[in-house]
Amino acid sequence: DASLKVFSLNSNPALAEKIAAQIGTKLGKCTVTQFSDGEIQINIEESVRGSDVYVIQSTSSPVNQHIMELLIMIDALKRASAKSINIVMPYYGYARQDRKARSREPITAKLVADLIEKAGANRMITLDLHAPQIQGFFDIPIDHLQGVPILATYFEQKDLDDVIVVSPDHGGVVRARKMADRLKAPIGIIDKRRPKPNVSEVMNIIGNIEGKTAILIDDLIDTAGTITLAANALIESGAKEVYACCTHPVLSGPAIERIDNSKIKELVIADTIPLPEEKRIDKITELSVASLIGEAIVRVHEMQSVSILFD
Amino acid sequence: DASLKVFSLNSNPALAEKIAAQIGTKLGKCTVTQFSDGEIQINIEESVRGSDVYVIQSTSSPVNQHIMELLIMIDALKRASAKSINIVMPYYGYARQDRKARSREPITAKLVADLIEKAGANRMITLDLHAPQIQGFFDIPIDHLQGVPILATYFEQKDLDDVIVVSPDHGGVVRARKMADRLKAPIGIIDKRRPKPNVSEVMNIIGNIEGKTAILIDDLIDTAGTITLAANALIESGAKEVYACCTHPVLSGPAIERIDNSKIKELVIADTIPLPEEKRIDKITELSVASLIGEAIVRVHEMQSVSILFD
Ligand SMILES: Nc1ncnc2c1ncn2[C@@H]1O[C@H](COP(=O)(O)O)[C@@H](O)[C@H]1O
Ligand SMILES: Nc1ncnc2c1ncn2[C@@H]1O[C@H](COP(=O)(O)O)[C@@H](O)[C@H]1O
Repeated sequence: DASLKVFSLNSNPALAEKIAAQIGTKLGKCTVTQFSDGEIQINIEESVRGSDVYVIQSTSSPVNQHIMELLIMIDALKRASAKSINIVMPYYGYARQDRKARSREPITAKLVADLIEKAGANRMITLDLHAPQIQGFFDIPIDHLQGVPILATYFEQKDLDDVIVVSPDHGGVVRARKMADRLKAPIGIIDKRRPKPNVSEVMNIIGNIEGKTAILIDDLIDTAGTITLAANALIESGAKEVYACCTHPVLSGPAIERIDNSKIKELVIADTIPLPEEKRIDKITELSVASLIGEAIVRVHEMQSVSILFD
Repeated sequence: DASLKVFSLNSNPALAEKIAAQIGTKLGKCTVTQFSDGEIQINIEESVRGSDVYVIQSTSSPVNQHIMELLIMIDALKRASAKSINIVMPYYGYARQDRKARSREPITAKLVADLIEKAGANRMITLDLHAPQIQGFFDIPIDHLQGVPILATYFEQKDLDDVIVVSPDHGGVVRARKMADRLKAPIGIIDKRRPKPNVSEVMNIIGNIEGKTAILIDDLIDTAGTITLAANALIESGAKEVYACCTHPVLSGPAIERIDNSKIKELVIADTIPLPEEKRIDKITELSVASLIGEAIVRVHEMQSVSILFD
């Protein structure tokens, strides 16, 4: 299909290659480099006139660089007369900045949505937003995909006994519920409480985990403080073993060391953010979201081909 | 004046301090740091409700980081009910990306203008835009200040004999003309030509420079290739000595080494971009634009105080 073009920017070229293979196409020719002073230079090396263009970019670290690459690419595509500009953002950065928790805080997740729209994007495909409300920050259509089925399928194939799916906080219960439904398992919740100011948090576990195989699930794991403390608390409370999984392996700072030293038996992640060589430890298993995203692109593109919206 | 608040982001705190001192105020309390994963965290530590806020930020290297700091700050100020948000951008990055020179190029200077407006800025004060047309990329009012008087005053005080002001290319002739008027000197132009494809450029000098003191002037010096070649060509063609000056010392990559090894006697720069310790060589003299900018802020603020625009 000549009118479908997929481009990768610099955040996740390995996933982009897999997505292109999945939909039976090659990545469009484009180089994204830097001038001597660090300004981004984009060269799109093939025509995009009249094409439905899909740009694959996670706004993972270095996040500001990756956001600007995306915005500049959208600007270039718009001026090059692309028929539609579709952003494929496997990981949406700044998603935890999604509300004013204190006075004078920015809502950067909304700002980024505004910037993407202002630059000229027509649609976005993304995965497991930290809060589903972020969809409402956009006026353009958002396809919000979920990583749970991929993670659940992996655990199903392991054929574990007596599973309980555990959410590491109250915010993740809906996600844990979905996973539990797929695995036909009960759910538990870690109920963190600070008994008094300046006293460290207590990990109170809601649900019976005695003798069970616990699977902790979260949307993202960043410094891995929460998830490793939760895993250790589960073992201390009698869990037989603890697995953990997430869609977005942010894994910054002490994350890998903490995971390696924790009671987590295996951490299952998706490839929305690339895992660099130095972070690949035995405990970590990486699954791919390439087919999930590839199918979504095909679905959206079929819809665009028949739609009058972009004609 | 309680309704005037000046904040500095991370690009040029030294200049920001000087500007605040110049207008007789203190910088507003605000910390701009990074989370473990590199996302920017901004804490504005004093009320800005009802204030005319001035945010000082050059979009110098790391440019993408500095742009995002600025946009997030604007978002935070807007949500904190600032009366007006005035951007003071001594150096406007991405300014050389101001037109489509080839197919499928972005116009990043326009994109950045759109982003700043979308985030919520009401006005901008800036200095020596690479092309004055960039003012037209904005719908908000722009105060466009010029560095020439500061540079010219410095050279006037040197009392040099038989001066000629030289533009290193045809794009800079208007600027050289202004400088020459101030110094009551003639102008020269370096006319770079490539005689044949794949033959190196020839530096053809328009104007009589024999025995003269040449002052090269440009808006910015980046890798310093052009300016050092120009200086050497001027000396070879009989100039007695060569000075160089610019408003924006980008000075990336080999710049400092090239300048040090060139025939330039002294390079005079402004402090729109901070000059880090390791780039401070004897040949470089730094002048401050703090009073120029300070006066502009006072002028704009007086106008805002009487204007109905923001009331
Ligand atoms: N990149 C980040 N790293 C760590 N914490 C963050 C980050 N961005 C936002 N936050 C904070 O995380 C909290 C929101 O996380 P959550 O409660 O999981 O939605 C807020 O207090 C934010 O200030
Ligand atoms: N950051 C940069 N560093 C070096 N060259 C650039 C940069 N940004 C844009 N350019 C190029 O510089 C040229 C414009 O410079 P000028 O002719 O001085 O306006 C264009 O060909 C741009 O592609």
